[in-house]
Amino acid sequence: MTNPTTITTPDGLPFVDIIRDFDAPRELVFRAYVDPDLVRQWQGPRRYVTAIGEWDARTGGAWSYVSTDPDDGAEYGFRGVFHAVDEPTSITQTFEYAGVPGHVNLDRVVFEDLGDGRTRVTSRTAFQSLEDRDGMVASGMSYGVTEGNERLDELLASLA
Amino acid sequence: MTNPTTITTPDGLPFVDIIRDFDAPRELVFRAYVDPDLVRQWQGPRRYVTAIGEWDARTGGAWSYVSTDPDDGAEYGFRGVFHAVDEPTSITQTFEYAGVPGHVNLDRVVFEDLGDGRTRVTSRTAFQSLEDRDGMVASGMSYGVTEGNERLDELLASLA
Repeated sequence: MTNPTTITTPDGLPFVDIIRDFDAPRELVFRAYVDPDLVRQWQGPRRYVTAIGEWDARTGGAWSYVSTDPDDGAEYGFRGVFHAVDEPTSITQTFEYAGVPGHVNLDRVVFEDLGDGRTRVTSRTAFQSLEDRDGMVASGMSYGVTEGNERLDELLASLA
Repeated sequence: MTNPTTITTPDGLPFVDIIRDFDAPRELVFRAYVDPDLVRQWQGPRRYVTAIGEWDARTGGAWSYVSTDPDDGAEYGFRGVFHAVDEPTSITQTFEYAGVPGHVNLDRVVFEDLGDGRTRVTSRTAFQSLEDRDGMVASGMSYGVTEGNERLDELLASLA
């Protein structure tokens, strides 16, 4: 049984809201978000290869990575800055896809201890326009997020 | 004749849009946004005293300042990170008021050369909720922005 990833795109508001539970303690789930060697193992769709450029997961730090499609060699670059990293409860960071420069969004991820070694991860992504939000959804965000979370399940089980 | 500051708060969308023209060349207006010694001289309402904590205006840098009300000594702290500083055309940065922690917004400011030594500054601030946007407007943002821009007019004239 895989925990569901619930993705909500509210009508008329430039947000994407995601809720996902993990069968792992909060400290471990948080670590998977801030340790670059863990991030590269679960972030995004399974078939891409992710190379971390930098992942300085502290307030004021920067992050970047490149995902490569092994079928055609196409590279997709992403970067941003960590506005705040408050271990183990929340991370707020910016996000920009190099293919659409100047279109930046703001992610806030909250980690909630559900007890019994389980964790709820809730995120809101705020976009600079409805068009930016709809473009991100149309790009296949849902697929990448859902499969990334399944990869994170496997990584957390291997670390437990 | 003072140039007007046009502030728009679209119904049902968590944005504040601001347009303001300045009778000064773009390079100079941009400098007033990135040089901390200039920023502290125009940012916000006239009666507050602004002390810059840090103002590392480059992609990945951090910023902070404290505004003090000389009447009662009350201090208002603000901080964020620069997602991107692209001289002389745009700045994208996060913004958080210490009095409402965890409520972060994203500013994108674009500097347009109008010719004849004039510059248009257009900004969009994207909030994480409509309530955050409405709270910022209710806090007197309009007054601070408009008076800050008048102070910026005076500073630009003194630098020209």
